[in-house]
Amino acid sequence: MADISPFAPSALPQLPEVAGVRLAACEAGIRYLGRKDLMLAVMDPGTTVAGVLTLSNTRSAPVDWCSACLPKGQARALVVNSGNANAFTGQRGHDAVATTVGLVSEAVGCPPEQVFVASTGVIGEPLDVATFADKLSQLSAAADPQAWPDVAHAIMTTDTYPKLATRTVELEGGDVTINGIAKGSGMIAPNMATMLAFIFTDASLAGEVLQPMVAQAADETFNAITVDGDTSTSDTVLAFATGAAAARGVAPINAQSPEETVAPFRSALEHLMRDLALQVVKDGEGLTKFVTINVRGAQSNEAARVIGQSIANSPLVKTAIAGEDPNWGRIVMAVGKAGEAADRARLKIWFGDLLVAEDGEVATRYREADGATLMKAPEIEITVDVGIAGGEATVWTCDLTARYVAINADYRS
Amino acid sequence: MADISPFAPSALPQLPEVAGVRLAACEAGIRYLGRKDLMLAVMDPGTTVAGVLTLSNTRSAPVDWCSACLPKGQARALVVNSGNANAFTGQRGHDAVATTVGLVSEAVGCPPEQVFVASTGVIGEPLDVATFADKLSQLSAAADPQAWPDVAHAIMTTDTYPKLATRTVELEGGDVTINGIAKGSGMIAPNMATMLAFIFTDASLAGEVLQPMVAQAADETFNAITVDGDTSTSDTVLAFATGAAAARGVAPINAQSPEETVAPFRSALEHLMRDLALQVVKDGEGLTKFVTINVRGAQSNEAARVIGQSIANSPLVKTAIAGEDPNWGRIVMAVGKAGEAADRARLKIWFGDLLVAEDGEVATRYREADGATLMKAPEIEITVDVGIAGGEATVWTCDLTARYVAINADYRS
Repeated sequence: MADISPFAPSALPQLPEVAGVRLAACEAGIRYLGRKDLMLAVMDPGTTVAGVLTLSNTRSAPVDWCSACLPKGQARALVVNSGNANAFTGQRGHDAVATTVGLVSEAVGCPPEQVFVASTGVIGEPLDVATFADKLSQLSAAADPQAWPDVAHAIMTTDTYPKLATRTVELEGGDVTINGIAKGSGMIAPNMATMLAFIFTDASLAGEVLQPMVAQAADETFNAITVDGDTSTSDTVLAFATGAAAARGVAPINAQSPEETVAPFRSALEHLMRDLALQVVKDGEGLTKFVTINVRGAQSNEAARVIGQSIANSPLVKTAIAGEDPNWGRIVMAVGKAGEAADRARLKIWFGDLLVAEDGEVATRYREADGATLMKAPEIEITVDVGIAGGEATVWTCDLTARYVAINADYRS
Repeated sequence: MADISPFAPSALPQLPEVAGVRLAACEAGIRYLGRKDLMLAVMDPGTTVAGVLTLSNTRSAPVDWCSACLPKGQARALVVNSGNANAFTGQRGHDAVATTVGLVSEAVGCPPEQVFVASTGVIGEPLDVATFADKLSQLSAAADPQAWPDVAHAIMTTDTYPKLATRTVELEGGDVTINGIAKGSGMIAPNMATMLAFIFTDASLAGEVLQPMVAQAADETFNAITVDGDTSTSDTVLAFATGAAAARGVAPINAQSPEETVAPFRSALEHLMRDLALQVVKDGEGLTKFVTINVRGAQSNEAARVIGQSIANSPLVKTAIAGEDPNWGRIVMAVGKAGEAADRARLKIWFGDLLVAEDGEVATRYREADGATLMKAPEIEITVDVGIAGGEATVWTCDLTARYVAINADYRS
C-alpha cells in the first residue's frame, strides 16, 4: 500500500544464526492477505529474558501477560502476530492470549509462563485465535536457525521495510552474537518502551544483569525516538539470552562479572538497539526527512529530553522540515512551550554546523539561503543550546507530510 | 492563499459601538500586501485592563511589555500588527516595542505603560518599525467607534475569516456591551492564554475584579481549545473596560459588588470568550471537522483536561477523523498515553449518543456502519468516561489534514 521509505536499506543485513534460537513465520490471514503475519521463535532451555513494556494505561492483553511472566525471567518461546493488537478486547483478549500460550507451550514442551506473546495492529477488534491455532504447532515443527528475514517481515504493519540488525561481541573464551528485529512505524513515541523489538543472543546472561542493561539501553535508544508522539498500547521490547555460547567455553555474565567483561556486551547491545531504533524512525509513516535533534545546556538530561521531544513532536516544526523551510522560529516556539528551563537571551540554534540563532535573536552571519540549502538534504541535524546548565540529550525523528495523513486517514479501509 | 474554512460564518456578526472605544486599521505592508495588517484601539481615560499571557519560555517582546504593564491596570491604547511576531528578536525587539509605544503614547496623550502591544506572525525576523511609524498617528486621528470589521481583519495571519463576537448584559441601571475579536489559526494549544484575543466593554469594572474573571474564563474557553498542540510565543488575551457606562448611570462592578451583580457580566464574558475560542478552532488550519471531546470520570477536572488534550492532540486520532474512520481504538490509545488514571475495564466511549466501547472492549450493540455514518458529519462529538472519579472537562479541536501540512510546509514562501 505504501511507497518504500527513502531511507530503506538497499539490502537487508544478513543475520547469522544465534545458537539456541530457531524461528519460523507463516501467512495466517489474520488481517493481511498474501504476506506473513505470524511468527514463532523457540529458544533452548535455560534462556533468560528481560524486557520493557509500554507505560500506557490501556495496554494490551499480550502486554499484561508479558508483564506477569517477565519477573520469572525464563523463556522458551515468543509468538507474535501482526494485523491485530489484541488491545482493548476485554476478557476475550485475555482468553486469546491464554489459548495461544497453551498451544505453544504444548508444541514446545514448556511451562506457559515461558511463552511470551506480542500482537500489533488494529486496536479494539477481537483477535480470533481459531484463524491461526493450527499454525502454531506447524511453526514449532518448522522452526530453523536461519529464518530471520521471515520473522522480521511477519511483524510488520505499515512498515515499508523489515528492520534487522546484528552484532558480534568478543567475550572471554570466544565470540557471541546479538541479533535483533523491530517494527514501527506509526504510533511511535518516546519515554516508553516503544513499538516491538526482539533481541536474541547466545551469550549466557543472568537475568539480574540483563534486565537493567536492556532497560537502560531502551531508554537511550527506543525511548529517544518519535514519529508522531503517539504511544502504542502494545509497545514491547524483549531480549532473550540462550546461554548456548557457554557450551563453547564463553564466560557467562552475571552480577559478579567485572565491568570490563560486561562493558563490551552492554555497548554492543546498545549499538544494536540504536540501530533498530533508527531503522524504525527512518521508516516513519510518510517521511521524507530523517532528523537528529541534539539539546544541550539544559537543567538536566531529562529536561533536555523533554525539550528535544517538544521540538521533535511539534507539528509546525515537522511540517516546516517537510517543506524544506529553515523556519527556526518554530524551534524557538517548541523550546518555549516545553515547560523546562531555557534562557531566551542565551539560546543558540544550529542547522548542522551552521549557527542560526544566538543571544536571543538571529545570528549576525546567518543567511537564509544557507539554511535553505541545508534543509534540502535528506538527513537534517538540529542542535539547540538552552543556556541553563549541562544537561543534554539526542532525539531522533522524521518530518510530517501529507502522506502521513493519507496513510492514517485510511489505515483500516 | 487558503480555501475558506467550511465553518466560516455566512455573515460576520454586526458589532455595536462600545462607549469609550475608538478603532482604526490600515495597510502597513509589514509582510502581507493588499490587506490591513496594523490596528489601533484608543480607549477613554479611566479604562481598566486585565489579561493572560503565554506561559512560553521564549515569549515575544510585546508579551514582555504587556506583562510589565498589566499590574498597573490602566490602558489607553492597544496596537497590534500581523505578519511579524517580534519574537526572538533580542534587544532590537524590545527597541521596536519601545518605539511603537512612544509614538502611540504621544499620539494618544497618555503614559507609555498605558499602551498595550501585540504582534503575530513569523518568529525570529526583526520587526522594522520604520515601515509603519508614520501610520500610528494617522490611525489615532482616524479612529472611530465602528471599525470592528477592520481591526478584526488586521490581526489575521493564516485565518480564513475574521473572528468577532458581541454580548449585551443588563446590569443595575442599564445595559453594557462586550465586544471581542480574536485570531487563530495554527500554533494553537491549550493550557495557556492562547492566540490573540481582545475584549472591550463599556462596563465599569475594577481591575481586581476583572483580572480573576478574565483568567478564569480564559481557562474555561481559550485554554480548552487546541488545533495542533503548538503554543505560540505571542499568545495574548486582553480585556479592556472603559467604564463609560457609569456616565449613563450603570452601576460599577468592584470587589464589594454582590454576586448577583457580578454573575450576569461574568457569564456573558465567558460566553463571548467561548464564542471566540470556538471560532478559532473552526478556522483551524486545513480542518474539515470540528470536534468536541468530553471527558468524564477522571481523577480531577485537571486530569480530565489532560486526557482530553491527549485525545485532541493525537495525530492518529486527528487523521482518523479526517478520514471519517470511526477508529475508536486510537481514542483508547490516547487515553492510555495521557499519564492520568484510567480504568481500562470501566472505560466507555461514545460517538455522539452512540455507545462504542464499554467494559474494556467494543460495545455489544455497536455496529461499525453506525459509527461510520456519524463520522461523516462535519461536527463530531466524542465522549469518554475513564471510570475513576468525578473529574470532567471539555476540549474542542479539529482534524489533521493534508492541507494542514501543505499550509505549514510553505507558510513563509
